[in-house]
Amino acid sequence: MQVVVPFAVDSPKTRLSPALTPDERRAFARAMLADVCEAIRDAGAEPTLLATAPVDLDVGADVRIDDRPLSRAVNAVLSAAGERRDPEAVAVVMADLALATPAALDRLFGADGDVVLAPGRGGGTNALVARHPDFRVDYHGASCRDHRRIAREVGADLTTVDSFRLATDVDEPGDLAEVLLHGGGRSRAFLEDVGFELATTDGRVTVERRPGDASG
Amino acid sequence: MQVVVPFAVDSPKTRLSPALTPDERRAFARAMLADVCEAIRDAGAEPTLLATAPVDLDVGADVRIDDRPLSRAVNAVLSAAGERRDPEAVAVVMADLALATPAALDRLFGADGDVVLAPGRGGGTNALVARHPDFRVDYHGASCRDHRRIAREVGADLTTVDSFRLATDVDEPGDLAEVLLHGGGRSRAFLEDVGFELATTDGRVTVERRPGDASG
Repeated sequence: MQVVVPFAVDSPKTRLSPALTPDERRAFARAMLADVCEAIRDAGAEPTLLATAPVDLDVGADVRIDDRPLSRAVNAVLSAAGERRDPEAVAVVMADLALATPAALDRLFGADGDVVLAPGRGGGTNALVARHPDFRVDYHGASCRDHRRIAREVGADLTTVDSFRLATDVDEPGDLAEVLLHGGGRSRAFLEDVGFELATTDGRVTVERRPGDASG
Repeated sequence: MQVVVPFAVDSPKTRLSPALTPDERRAFARAMLADVCEAIRDAGAEPTLLATAPVDLDVGADVRIDDRPLSRAVNAVLSAAGERRDPEAVAVVMADLALATPAALDRLFGADGDVVLAPGRGGGTNALVARHPDFRVDYHGASCRDHRRIAREVGADLTTVDSFRLATDVDEPGDLAEVLLHGGGRSRAFLEDVGFELATTDGRVTVERRPGDASG
């Protein structure tokens, strides 16, 4: 299965700016990407990096450059597969799924359906599999709803994968606790190295950063 | 399977106070509870309400009253089952899992293991199954980690269920978007009735409340 991992090379993870410096965000995004690519390979698939610019990364993935916005770049891949009437499915897995495991990806890749969606928190679509030549993506807004509608419109059978690991994209400071609790090796190690640790509150566990490691 | 649903009768959902009045929080908590109990019954199990005080609710569940803190009240149930050397498992499912479906609960109830955990966001334990006589709960802090440790200490085989629906407890205003996107019938209808609708942002979808329906 062709597994496309979109990656914004130049401006990764701006919504993490309250917690991490630009250099840290860049390094953390690459750590998550490496964890995601490893989980994809361990699930028996081959990741292809869909990067917005040339990038020198050793994450064990082929690289395809496309500087267009996310949905257009992904749709170019889906369109090419559809034109080939390619029996092979195309999967799209976001690069910030730091909790993704081979088992969670196996459930995604192995699910039946012309279109398989893994919803993300806040209405997103964190991962999908497309086996229908006419299915296209639209990642703006509540994309999970839009993708259900698009699947209906093209007559594609739809399956949803119910996975906490695939639902957890790491976009905001509050998400860092999930990486420390459940995350992949490089992502978690990065956060620990720069001083993050879990902080217990009356509600959900959050993170705090040790003095002396504060970002500039 | 005995499925215990803890429910705080008098002070439900205080962390939702920025979004809902006390009366609304009370009504919303009851709507979520009714959705959860229905999903449990539709999964073929019988819910028992573990309530902090007598409560007049028509949610199709037996009621057990225990005014002690959550962990002590749940441990009393586990201890009683353990003393009976009861071959039947005890499940504990939180009352604010407004996204729970019979399919998600089937995965929980049907998973092998002396202890089965469904982690919640922020380190919590939103649902579990205990089949080991010595397993006990401790819901304070990062309970998911503590429950893994407790299972190890008593020699119980541990299984984790990876479910977005079971990971999503509804505690904070930001969680309301998930109810509108994926939630059960009564919970979603309640929020729609009091004026909440989805609001698209640059990041995750959130909620906004229509003017004229403002709380307070």
